[in-house]
Amino acid sequence: MTLLEATIKKIRPADVSVRQQARTRLEQLTMPHWALGRIMDLAEDLAAMTGSLHPPVTRKTVATMAGDHGVTAQGVSKYPQAVTAQMVHNFVNGGAGINALACLAGAQVVVVDMGVAGDLGALTAAGTILSRRIGAGTKDMAIGPAMSREEAVRCIEAGIEVALSLADSTDLFATGDMGIGNTTPSSAIVSVFSGASVAEVTGRGTGIEEDQFLHKIRIIEQAMRVNRPDPSDALDVLTKVGGFEIGGIAGLILGAASLRKPVLIDGFISTAGALIAAHLSPTARDYMIASHRSLEQGHRVALSHLGKKPLLDLDLRLGEGTGAVLAMNLVEAAVRILTEVATFEEASVSRANS
Amino acid sequence: MTLLEATIKKIRPADVSVRQQARTRLEQLTMPHWALGRIMDLAEDLAAMTGSLHPPVTRKTVATMAGDHGVTAQGVSKYPQAVTAQMVHNFVNGGAGINALACLAGAQVVVVDMGVAGDLGALTAAGTILSRRIGAGTKDMAIGPAMSREEAVRCIEAGIEVALSLADSTDLFATGDMGIGNTTPSSAIVSVFSGASVAEVTGRGTGIEEDQFLHKIRIIEQAMRVNRPDPSDALDVLTKVGGFEIGGIAGLILGAASLRKPVLIDGFISTAGALIAAHLSPTARDYMIASHRSLEQGHRVALSHLGKKPLLDLDLRLGEGTGAVLAMNLVEAAVRILTEVATFEEASVSRANS
Repeated sequence: MTLLEATIKKIRPADVSVRQQARTRLEQLTMPHWALGRIMDLAEDLAAMTGSLHPPVTRKTVATMAGDHGVTAQGVSKYPQAVTAQMVHNFVNGGAGINALACLAGAQVVVVDMGVAGDLGALTAAGTILSRRIGAGTKDMAIGPAMSREEAVRCIEAGIEVALSLADSTDLFATGDMGIGNTTPSSAIVSVFSGASVAEVTGRGTGIEEDQFLHKIRIIEQAMRVNRPDPSDALDVLTKVGGFEIGGIAGLILGAASLRKPVLIDGFISTAGALIAAHLSPTARDYMIASHRSLEQGHRVALSHLGKKPLLDLDLRLGEGTGAVLAMNLVEAAVRILTEVATFEEASVSRANS
Repeated sequence: MTLLEATIKKIRPADVSVRQQARTRLEQLTMPHWALGRIMDLAEDLAAMTGSLHPPVTRKTVATMAGDHGVTAQGVSKYPQAVTAQMVHNFVNGGAGINALACLAGAQVVVVDMGVAGDLGALTAAGTILSRRIGAGTKDMAIGPAMSREEAVRCIEAGIEVALSLADSTDLFATGDMGIGNTTPSSAIVSVFSGASVAEVTGRGTGIEEDQFLHKIRIIEQAMRVNRPDPSDALDVLTKVGGFEIGGIAGLILGAASLRKPVLIDGFISTAGALIAAHLSPTARDYMIASHRSLEQGHRVALSHLGKKPLLDLDLRLGEGTGAVLAMNLVEAAVRILTEVATFEEASVSRANS
């Protein structure tokens, strides 16, 4: 059995009995019934995921997966491909959005080179990033498959291994991405799985203008025609119109689910990874928390297909894991409510008139 | 000149020049333009409020204002009036929702007795709550004014004094409320100022059933007929259909604005207080941050009339300041982005193709 098969086999549904125990406690807290709404929903979910009425969430890790995309040769992005490697250096130097927000959340940032075109050897040697390189960027999906099926399995398994290697120091995972051009494969993935048209699920990524936007849609449509990804085969979708970091994200999610640990899904690219994971293991969805709704067109469709309602809606469109680490505070809030608020009985507060 | 008049006079518009400087920096950060959306809007706002490119927000205080309401005699709430005092004890003992969430946010909770019907003398004597009692609950607004005009001024000034007394230990204020029955005056206030019908802005508060809900609407309509509050006179509105804690919240906001300190507005009751403040000093709105949209019907109208878009939308309806302290993390995130993220130049990252 491969690591991917073994991991999928290990993923068990969240615990309905602990969920019920959490609900019973939450319904007795000194407040009107379910008065903290989605924070209480989340508290229930966390109890069910972790099988505990004191869900551990203190030790937090965001894995920011970086990869390059051959399809950038088609001019789908506003930024040159070199920016992927430059931003990895920025992560390592602590100057990026994810560094600032992870620091606030008390989360460690683990940067993973899943297949950046630029040379990151020095950072790998220094141990400041993890190297799980599948290749120097994917191939151009507009003219053929982005990667081989074997590479698709390898990048998912790399993500699983990252989760497993962090298991001893992590209660709460978060996904993140960096990859110039990666809204292009993400839109393709969302279109394949949801059945929505490419135009419906394609947005302006880093901020392209109208002409380039229409061109991007045509390129994605071309990639779909050329490759004909099979929606019933998630590995085929990743192979043909995916990305190394997207596969890494899918693997990280599967790994977290196999460990019964919650995982916060960041924005559009991470949700594309989550869709790959969910199609490989529908049960893995029990461990996913949608952190936010991105401004990127198509994220709404992607979340709806995943069956998740996002916690935040703040017009973010950065990626890196920024939305996911912002939502860590709400996860911790949910645990505080479950574990620290007194019941009516404990606090001698009168109940509602029946 | 009274304290209220002096405070209103002291409130100056937020600094447009510092806002522009903040914007200039935010536009140079190593990310696509404005890719953190509303977090960046908030960063600009905080710079303008505080007149600083390093807005201080570390020392955080939520003032939870408690008061009782004579209109509970009309059977508008699901809980007995005694719960207000019981919940104040729960706050002091650390067992309420606000305690758990303020602790997570690193905020101190200051509980203020603005006019609770029960006896809180022991807590006041022990110094665990602030006593700014105007009376033992308001009068029943269904049959006459909730308070005298002089009491309305006194409760606002009490709120101002709370803000001033906390100024040396607080960078970021948050409002909170506790008062059985207080969605009833809040709906009245929102209806008066917005012009929306009572039915449009009245909800189920702590969770009343259909019959009691219709009764509540009739009681508020009766209060409006009996009192005829004048929408052009915020003190008249507070006098006739207000509450002591609602006036205290209005005062806290005016005090914070006069200190050029940001203040997070909690849910429906706090927004009613914010409307009183905004009608006394439209400029004070520059210092208000709408933390969340409550599930309570009417909050949407209230926020829209206040001209504020909420940060969170999590189906909360608890009050106490819980939504406001949950949003503190986003305020801190905004400051981190403004102050900690590298610019393209600093990080040697290539800019977008023009």
